[in-house]
Amino acid sequence: MRAVDIIIKKRDHEVLTREEIDFFVSGFSKNEIPDYQVAAWAMAVLLNGMTDQETTDLTLAMVRSGEMLDFSHVVDTVVDKHSTGGVGDKTTLVVAPIVAACGLPVGKMSGRGLGFSGGTLDKMESIPGYRVDLTRDEFVRQLKEVGIVLSGQSADLAPADGKLYALRDVTGTVPSMPLIASSVMSKKIAAGANAILLDVKTGVGAFMETEEDARKLAELMVAIGKLSGRKVIGMISDMNQPLGFAVGNALEVKEAIDALHGEGPDDFMEHCLVVSSYMLLMAKRAETLDDAREMCERSIADGSALEMFKKLVAAQGGDVSYVDHPEKLPQASLVETITASQDGFVQQINAREIGETSVELGAGRARKGDPVDHAVGIVVHCKVGDAVKQGEELASVHANDEAKLSAAVERVKGAFVVGSEACEPLPLFYGVIE
Amino acid sequence: MRAVDIIIKKRDHEVLTREEIDFFVSGFSKNEIPDYQVAAWAMAVLLNGMTDQETTDLTLAMVRSGEMLDFSHVVDTVVDKHSTGGVGDKTTLVVAPIVAACGLPVGKMSGRGLGFSGGTLDKMESIPGYRVDLTRDEFVRQLKEVGIVLSGQSADLAPADGKLYALRDVTGTVPSMPLIASSVMSKKIAAGANAILLDVKTGVGAFMETEEDARKLAELMVAIGKLSGRKVIGMISDMNQPLGFAVGNALEVKEAIDALHGEGPDDFMEHCLVVSSYMLLMAKRAETLDDAREMCERSIADGSALEMFKKLVAAQGGDVSYVDHPEKLPQASLVETITASQDGFVQQINAREIGETSVELGAGRARKGDPVDHAVGIVVHCKVGDAVKQGEELASVHANDEAKLSAAVERVKGAFVVGSEACEPLPLFYGVIE
Repeated sequence: MRAVDIIIKKRDHEVLTREEIDFFVSGFSKNEIPDYQVAAWAMAVLLNGMTDQETTDLTLAMVRSGEMLDFSHVVDTVVDKHSTGGVGDKTTLVVAPIVAACGLPVGKMSGRGLGFSGGTLDKMESIPGYRVDLTRDEFVRQLKEVGIVLSGQSADLAPADGKLYALRDVTGTVPSMPLIASSVMSKKIAAGANAILLDVKTGVGAFMETEEDARKLAELMVAIGKLSGRKVIGMISDMNQPLGFAVGNALEVKEAIDALHGEGPDDFMEHCLVVSSYMLLMAKRAETLDDAREMCERSIADGSALEMFKKLVAAQGGDVSYVDHPEKLPQASLVETITASQDGFVQQINAREIGETSVELGAGRARKGDPVDHAVGIVVHCKVGDAVKQGEELASVHANDEAKLSAAVERVKGAFVVGSEACEPLPLFYGVIE
Repeated sequence: MRAVDIIIKKRDHEVLTREEIDFFVSGFSKNEIPDYQVAAWAMAVLLNGMTDQETTDLTLAMVRSGEMLDFSHVVDTVVDKHSTGGVGDKTTLVVAPIVAACGLPVGKMSGRGLGFSGGTLDKMESIPGYRVDLTRDEFVRQLKEVGIVLSGQSADLAPADGKLYALRDVTGTVPSMPLIASSVMSKKIAAGANAILLDVKTGVGAFMETEEDARKLAELMVAIGKLSGRKVIGMISDMNQPLGFAVGNALEVKEAIDALHGEGPDDFMEHCLVVSSYMLLMAKRAETLDDAREMCERSIADGSALEMFKKLVAAQGGDVSYVDHPEKLPQASLVETITASQDGFVQQINAREIGETSVELGAGRARKGDPVDHAVGIVVHCKVGDAVKQGEELASVHANDEAKLSAAVERVKGAFVVGSEACEPLPLFYGVIE
């Protein structure tokens, strides 16, 4: 078998066999197939596509390029959740405690933020002492004893995916459905998941800007699940405006704690309850979605979800007093409020603009490894469809630098469109694919 | 400007600007843009195409990556000829002396054979002493004093093209019209040509198997000529069966000498006369194609073309007695003749099979740098459309190895199809594009 023949086959719109894909991925991860051949192949894949079976074979080949974790001795069904990345998406911080409080152990490996989309680890590190670098043993012990873990990768999961992603990033081959889907799925399967809930965001603040693309990606990941023997549910959710109100690390942690108290923004509460319910259903912790929903609501009402969050923080070395007193979390030195210049209805709160402005304030990173400022960010005070009066607060910008503050204020103003015509609220979800 | 953005633009079917193409080619040839980016770009070009203007910009950028020769002080119009490669194509050996004998100096840089297609330099080296490694000074002096040169490249012409070709070869990006056309044209323009006759072969023994593809390639090269201020004529010629009778280095030299005596195979004589006539017309050595044709025929009839060939051989150190006595040329130790097993008509002489068999006999090379056996090859004794009787000779195989001989005989037999139905001869040319 020769790498060039596999490239030519894909170039000529032919379907690759499992053996060919295994040969290619294994050769690439062992540095036996050079980058330039992989780059040409990736471009051919991007332009000519892959079947569901090819994409599944690619996923599993990348899984096999590294270690595959197995938590079946700790939990009967390992349910994982993945969001394709959004602005203000602090869902994991709420969903993991809810689900764990309902009796399903959750051991989640998360990542850091890159670009306009935030990362769970950065958010959790707003809490002083919180460790995201658990060892494998620590991870398993905590999953067994506490029933909840939120850490970074404790192993080199699907290293071929990491290597391929780095190459795609510099060769214009990122936006390919089969390459995106296999990347996500390979990491989740390598992390030992039997059931995966995928939250595919769509809108101006998402990688999949159109609903059609988001649906295709969700369908593809559900197909990979079927072909690889994993239960997968794909939810298409809105990312035209930020999820909830807060964008920025400590600001989002505070909002997550509010939500665990039952006092989060309506859209964010609803989003978390739907996601949690599906996760419980997938793990057969409930008979019906309605039953699952009831369990989730109860975990908020009786304080058990909040309790689980505190256990998580304590187990990973975080200072729990910050959960009890979120006002202790890092706070920005400068806060400026933006108000409506006229009466009207909120027509748009451009999530990408808000996300990028938050990065510019220092909440996110443009390059891997850059430090983040946990205090800064943006809090919106309304949602699309809301009626506002002249002078009413639209958003607050939290900054630690005068120049950055004034630039951010201008940009956030531009992200809002307030018009005189009434406007429907945006839907939370566009569909569920299973 | 960033290489990745140029890749993305081409990936998204956009048209690259001259500045972008210059940046990319210059970066690649200076090793500032890595191979993997060029490979992804080449695949995007192959799958998404390029406009004529982009292809011209690519051609000229590759020309500028090295030295550009200028022979305008030696000859008013530098006419070059290029064949896309065929089986039995010894045209240059006859056309160059004809044209030079008609008063148009010809300084031609040729290449070696690779794969089933032979190379002019290998053929000329059948004549003992013939040097193909002239220095620049020797090349110019001989062009000025003798009026004919047939040598290898005396300079690093269009080095970016060489670098790109090597990468295309291992990334499945060879068969792209814009990449093929710019490769050919960049070398010809860098070699100083003002007028270029392109002989684009089509058929089973050509890189462009269909007439449609050959026509597209010819049209594209003519378009590059127009956009770069060079006169270009593209001829589409048949390569379903070998050109002439002989395939193999010394065998082809002998046939070329026969042709210069006016005694070559009809198809080959005609091919050479047509090509020579167009070259004279391009250089304004004749008013009309008919006038040019007459000049060419006269150069054969009066022996001046043959004389010019001898001058060429002598000037480059070859032993001229081999031209006078071609029987002195290397001869194979084993010759086996294949005869018709039935009466009928020759329906097919598969040029690719004949070409590949010739390579297997040792006449060509599978890899760059392999040695060649000048003596071996195949001589066919008929052409498609000919009536043959049972027992009549179809071809002779010339070999220096028993095992290779018997394998070649079987393969050559298979290349012939003799059927009972009458069959039209194949055309020599399918069209001329200018």
